[in-house]
Amino acid sequence: MKYERYQTCIDACLECATECEHCATSCLNEKDVAMLTRCIQLDRECAEACYASARLMGMGGEHALLFCHACAEICEVCAEECEKHAAHGMTHCRVCAEACRQCAEECRAMTGVNA
Amino acid sequence: MKYERYQTCIDACLECATECEHCATSCLNEKDVAMLTRCIQLDRECAEACYASARLMGMGGEHALLFCHACAEICEVCAEECEKHAAHGMTHCRVCAEACRQCAEECRAMTGVNA
Amino acid sequence: MKYERYQTCIDACLECATECEHCATSCLNEKDVAMLTRCIQLDRECAEACYASARLMGMGGEHALLFCHACAEICEVCAEECEKHAAHGMTHCRVCAEACRQCAEECRAMTGVNA
Amino acid sequence: MKYERYQTCIDACLECATECEHCATSCLNEKDVAMLTRCIQLDRECAEACYASARLMGMGGEHALLFCHACAEICEVCAEECEKHAAHGMTHCRVCAEACRQCAEECRAMTGVNA
Repeated sequence: MKYERYQTCIDACLECATECEHCATSCLNEKDVAMLTRCIQLDRECAEACYASARLMGMGGEHALLFCHACAEICEVCAEECEKHAAHGMTHCRVCAEACRQCAEECRAMTGVNA
Repeated sequence: MKYERYQTCIDACLECATECEHCATSCLNEKDVAMLTRCIQLDRECAEACYASARLMGMGGEHALLFCHACAEICEVCAEECEKHAAHGMTHCRVCAEACRQCAEECRAMTGVNA
Repeated sequence: MKYERYQTCIDACLECATECEHCATSCLNEKDVAMLTRCIQLDRECAEACYASARLMGMGGEHALLFCHACAEICEVCAEECEKHAAHGMTHCRVCAEACRQCAEECRAMTGVNA
Repeated sequence: MKYERYQTCIDACLECATECEHCATSCLNEKDVAMLTRCIQLDRECAEACYASARLMGMGGEHALLFCHACAEICEVCAEECEKHAAHGMTHCRVCAEACRQCAEECRAMTGVNA
């Protein structure tokens, strides 16, 4: 089954998706929410991209890697934004940025191996 | 707002996603299910791709078009498979194939205009 | 097929889900985003609930109505919140509130008929 | 943040969702697919229910437990079906049944504690 070779990448996507949802909710509860609107927006997009990629890989889908490729792009943009706020002490942004970087790396590895 | 220019494509994706879920369920209820396993598998993948694309466009997501591009690929493969069974009288496969072709066309139009 | 009797409710759910995603993005772009954080949060939850309900109905799922019931609850809470901001001139909140009310009504009708 | 108390349940839902997608794909590749159609159908429904519940919990959603309650019901029905095939040597059904039982238990625990 194809999905076995996807397992590490699925796990990274689901971890990243969950951290993105957490980060968005946490940002909405911050006093300085006005500074965090791009972060919230990217968290929403990144969560959707990660869930969809994980799900297609979970199905052993023959087109899953097209989605992993797109997912890596979004993860990197989201990580960059989160890292800005992490530098100003936002813990949820730091945790989210790390999950995004890890997920991007796993998605790149998948598409590199199989492209 | 970006999502306004996405509306026709969102509608095509959601129509296609729903028809794919219908088609998979209908295939599972056919006597000749053994002939339809690839159709069911592609229906599942296509539904996920369409929902994710619609959702990212609904968010006005800056990376939505990467997903539309991948979605168009899956829709075309699913349409091809459904058309084989449509030719043998499967109504749900015919309806699904039409929705997949329409969705692929809208997704291609989006990415062509905006790439 | 079960999903035929679900079609109106599926349409209402998908319309509501899309409007919720639009509303969340539009709120994030408002100057007064700090006033809209609960609206954004409920939009996110409502979108997920509506997509999941539409998808389970699209599958002709035997447990879809359990999700419709939960979906109606979220839609009503989201509608209430959106209506507050609609009263202060937020068009996206007004459109979203209408879609939420419509969806709640269709979900209630489904569960009433079938419970 | 609410989602911290949800973490074990989120993990169980995501594990179960992934195993359901795996099981559906594996069933579609079995020679005796005609015996497995109800299993495939329930796997699809259960995966959707688990992803939606995990996602709403990940958002710290105030209505997440309504979905956990519905999710537990679906997980139990899916587990029952998978157990029948596990008894006849289907490994993917056995693994899926275990994930469904675990997820149902975590969802019941969440709703019991918080209802």
